[in-house]
Amino acid sequence: MKKIYLAGPDVFLSDSIEQGQRKKELCQKYGFEGLYPLDNEIEDTFEHKADMGLHIAQANEKLIQECDAVIANLTPFRGTSADVGTVYEIGLAKGLNKMVLGYSNDGRNFLQRNLDELTGVRQQPNASYIDKENMALEDFDLVDNLMIDGGVHYPIIKNEVYQTGERFRDLEAFEACLMRLANHA
Amino acid sequence: MKKIYLAGPDVFLSDSIEQGQRKKELCQKYGFEGLYPLDNEIEDTFEHKADMGLHIAQANEKLIQECDAVIANLTPFRGTSADVGTVYEIGLAKGLNKMVLGYSNDGRNFLQRNLDELTGVRQQPNASYIDKENMALEDFDLVDNLMIDGGVHYPIIKNEVYQTGERFRDLEAFEACLMRLANHA
Repeated sequence: MKKIYLAGPDVFLSDSIEQGQRKKELCQKYGFEGLYPLDNEIEDTFEHKADMGLHIAQANEKLIQECDAVIANLTPFRGTSADVGTVYEIGLAKGLNKMVLGYSNDGRNFLQRNLDELTGVRQQPNASYIDKENMALEDFDLVDNLMIDGGVHYPIIKNEVYQTGERFRDLEAFEACLMRLANHA
Repeated sequence: MKKIYLAGPDVFLSDSIEQGQRKKELCQKYGFEGLYPLDNEIEDTFEHKADMGLHIAQANEKLIQECDAVIANLTPFRGTSADVGTVYEIGLAKGLNKMVLGYSNDGRNFLQRNLDELTGVRQQPNASYIDKENMALEDFDLVDNLMIDGGVHYPIIKNEVYQTGERFRDLEAFEACLMRLANHA
């Protein structure tokens, strides 16, 4: 049975363990085994906090090495881009030659989110945009930073989820990734 | 001569090309060849913007495949974490078994930045913190998300750069990474 690493900021949810369970059950429905990050399941027996953090990172990297594919929750997290931990994981998976899929529960493209949410953005005479630190805004009609759109093996599946509390929990687009993977396998 | 891929949001600076030149010259000083991302050097001959973005991503992935090491500018970008494009690249490099080093021109740890910059953070009875969407704040005394600190081969080099305009340009911590790499090689 193919193993799928379930990357995403889901690990930060108050019901993170249950969210992992829901994702694992959906994986089973399509004949896959879901591997959920170990952020919340490692016992705190470390003298220094940092050692525990690095241990979790190592444990997650090991799960990614074991998997056949990654499905990443790329819903923008605390800003206009996907969670950086998740993004590191899809980069790692790509380098390890795993299949990488992603979904986002935000329907806007990257430029639109930046225009909606950053303060101090200005348009220049050549029509391009810069932020308050005079740094360019990407304008490629993509879902996120071009390295993310370019990194995944299929276009990122978008779903507009309006309910705040459900933004990171909704699994319709996640299930669409599973279907795509099942058709590919 | 060893090749170093120069990852970072430096590509979004108004003087991005010159910043790349400065980094390449510092690489030479230590006997390395610097490879700078091609975001600003690919000719726009594409019918659709998205195709150009994906082409840049592919060209950067190719440069990372060619390099021996990556030095990543992990200075927080438009939020409390490193630029996601940069983070994807260090993940990819790690998966491809390249040496990965990083620096940040922000001296704070990740929890402190989140406490300073996120709105609506609350402390819970068990002393942990949650954000306005009830999602946990990482508290591991690390520089960024644990996957980033866990991903680099040496602890991220921090330098406190106070001048706003210099935050992404200052190269002292970058040069410290070069020295570390030169000693390692």
